[in-house]
Order: sequence, then C-alpha cells, then structure tokens
Amino acid sequence: MRKAFHEQLESVFDDLAGICQSVETAVRLATEALLTGDAEIAEQVISADADIDKAREKVEETAFSILSLQQPVAGDLRVVVAALRMVSELERMGDLSVHVAKIARLRVPHVAVPEEIRPTLARMGDVAEDMVARVAQIIKGRDVEAAIELGRADEIMDQLRRRSFTQLFSDEWTHGIEAAVDLALLGRYYERIADHAVSVANRVVYVVTGDFPART
Amino acid sequence: MRKAFHEQLESVFDDLAGICQSVETAVRLATEALLTGDAEIAEQVISADADIDKAREKVEETAFSILSLQQPVAGDLRVVVAALRMVSELERMGDLSVHVAKIARLRVPHVAVPEEIRPTLARMGDVAEDMVARVAQIIKGRDVEAAIELGRADEIMDQLRRRSFTQLFSDEWTHGIEAAVDLALLGRYYERIADHAVSVANRVVYVVTGDFPART
Repeated sequence: MRKAFHEQLESVFDDLAGICQSVETAVRLATEALLTGDAEIAEQVISADADIDKAREKVEETAFSILSLQQPVAGDLRVVVAALRMVSELERMGDLSVHVAKIARLRVPHVAVPEEIRPTLARMGDVAEDMVARVAQIIKGRDVEAAIELGRADEIMDQLRRRSFTQLFSDEWTHGIEAAVDLALLGRYYERIADHAVSVANRVVYVVTGDFPART
Repeated sequence: MRKAFHEQLESVFDDLAGICQSVETAVRLATEALLTGDAEIAEQVISADADIDKAREKVEETAFSILSLQQPVAGDLRVVVAALRMVSELERMGDLSVHVAKIARLRVPHVAVPEEIRPTLARMGDVAEDMVARVAQIIKGRDVEAAIELGRADEIMDQLRRRSFTQLFSDEWTHGIEAAVDLALLGRYYERIADHAVSVANRVVYVVTGDFPART
C-alpha cells in the first residue's frame, strides 16, 4: 500500500515537473512574441495552453485516485493536496503567459513595448523564465535549498516592476496611454508568474519538510 | 460516520459563506476608499484582510480533519476538495480588494480615479460587490440556478472593463499616465474578483450536481 502510494505520488511529481517545463516554454515564447511582434509565436503560446490544461486534468485525476484508493492521512494527505494546489498554480502561470501573448498579438504588426522599455521587459521575461525553469528542477529534485533561493529572484522581479513604473511616470514618457497601459498590465502578469513560481517552490519545501519556509 | 461527515461539511460551508460576506465588505469598502480618497477606510480594508486569512486557515484545518478522519471517497471526496479550492479563491478575492485599497491609499489626499471615470468605476465596484453577495447566498442555499445566473453579471463586468478602455484610449483622455495606469490595474482587479466569484459559484454547482455548468 505504502509502496503504491509513493510510486503514484512520484508519477504526480514527474507530471508537475513536465507541466512546469511547458509553462517555461510558454513564458519564453510569450516574451519573444512581445518583443518582436510576431503573431505566429503569440498564436503558438495561445493554442499550446490547451495542453497545459489537459496535463492539469491528468494530475488532478491521479491525485483524486490516490486520495480515494490509498486514503492517505496526516502528512501524506497534505502532500497530495499540495500537489493539487501546485498544479492549479502552474495552470494559472500558463494563463498569464497567454495574457502576455494576447497583448503581443493585439499590437501586431507593431511591437507593444516601446524600444527603450524593451530591455526592462526582456529582463522581466528572462527572470520569469529562469524562475519557472528553476521550479521545474526544484520539483524534480525536491530541492529545498533552491526553493528558498528562489525568493531572491522574486525580489529582482519586484525591482524590475518598480523600474518600469519609474519609466512610465517620468516626464520623458512619450509613448502615449496605450503603451503605458500595456506596460502596466504586462508588469502585473510577469509579477504574478513570479509570485506563483515562489508559491509552488514553497509548496515543495512543505512537501519535503512538513513546513513552509519562514517569510523573510 | 456519514452523519458526522455531513455535519462537518455543513460547518465548512457555513464558514465559506461567512468568509464570502467578509469579502463583500472588503470589496464595498475598497471601492468607497477609492472613490472618496479616504485613507482610513483603505486602511480598514488592508488590516481586515488578516481575518480573512485566519478564517481560511480554519476552513483548511476542518477540511483536512474531514479528509483524515472520515476518509471520504468518490463524490464526497471531491466536495471536500472543492471546498478547499473555494476558500483559496475567496482569500484571493480579499487580496484583490486590498490591491484596490492600496491604490486608493497611494493617491491620498487625491482621488485615484478622475471624476468622469468615477461612474464606470462605481459600477464596477457595485457589480463586484453584488456578485460576491450573491455568491454568499449561493453557498448558503446551494443555489444552482443563482450560480448559473451569475455568469450574466460577469458579462456586465467585462462590458464595463471594455468601456473603461474606450475612455482611456479616447482622444479626450486628459488625466495623464498615472491615472491611466491606475485605471487599467483597477479594471484588472475588479475583473479578477468577478472571475473568482463565478468560479466559486461554479464549484457550488459541482458540489450539488457533480458536474460543472456548461461554458456558454
């Protein structure tokens, strides 16, 4: 019974890591579509989201089957519920990448982000992509150290968002309202992707240690 | 055993309805703070959020205790997991109200929203508050009809958000970048509150019927 439980749980975590890699691709391509104004790449992100949804359903079904058939209690039960929460957050990160791709698509043949803001946006995209890639490794390796480290990357994201606001609100902003609104929403989407990445990593810490990392 | 299960589940749903009422207050006060620039009301929303978090923890503990001690299977198991998801969404709706309150606070002694946009924002706040109030009733009465109805209110929210964008992007916008960015983010926050309200209502449909409402 316990062996079956742990094997099934292992397969759930493999699936979670797989979904995380799909999300990483979505974040990378959405940023690329955004910075190049490439409608095809944006469409690719939007249509690939259905696969993430399907993979989420599979994880949910397996988790329900574990709960029904193995009837885990105490710590084991909480691990399975943690997996259910992780998969919801990963799906949400996919949705947020779709939001980024849709802003890119909306502005084609133009590029939504004014030229001098692109470095900031490119950094946001890189940080988000890197965080998601690290979460995949954290899930695979149940890596508590790396999960705690991830909070630092999130601070960089917060700094980038503040920088984007400084650029937006400076007297030198000459790109009008539409680009300002796009940038504000894009900053919000990347920030939320980073928040969810930290939250998923924290759940891995919980799965391994039975406790969430202390908030710093 | 089954009797204990249903009694405990009943108390979870009572708690969910109670949290929903706290969220309704948060949405109402956040909108009031926003439209009047009242820092005290904004602070009230921000500090009351801790109570919502505490109430969420209580629901989670009860749900875990039901899962551990009653070991529900099949439909019963899915109902308990649905309750866990509902409480996460309600907490998130509280967080979004805090985001609204923080924009209000940031602009004190001014009012974040320019005068001619206030009617649109006031409508968004009303629609969101009404949706949350209806979700509390839907949870209390396990009201499938009302849950399905809620989708219509969500369409009104989407229309309001589109209207706010039309106002933002018109040539008559004279309120500068900061107010535009505030309005874009506020629209996003209210839209997310409405999305979560619909999602919680759909979970009630699932709890009662074993199925989610068809997407229309």
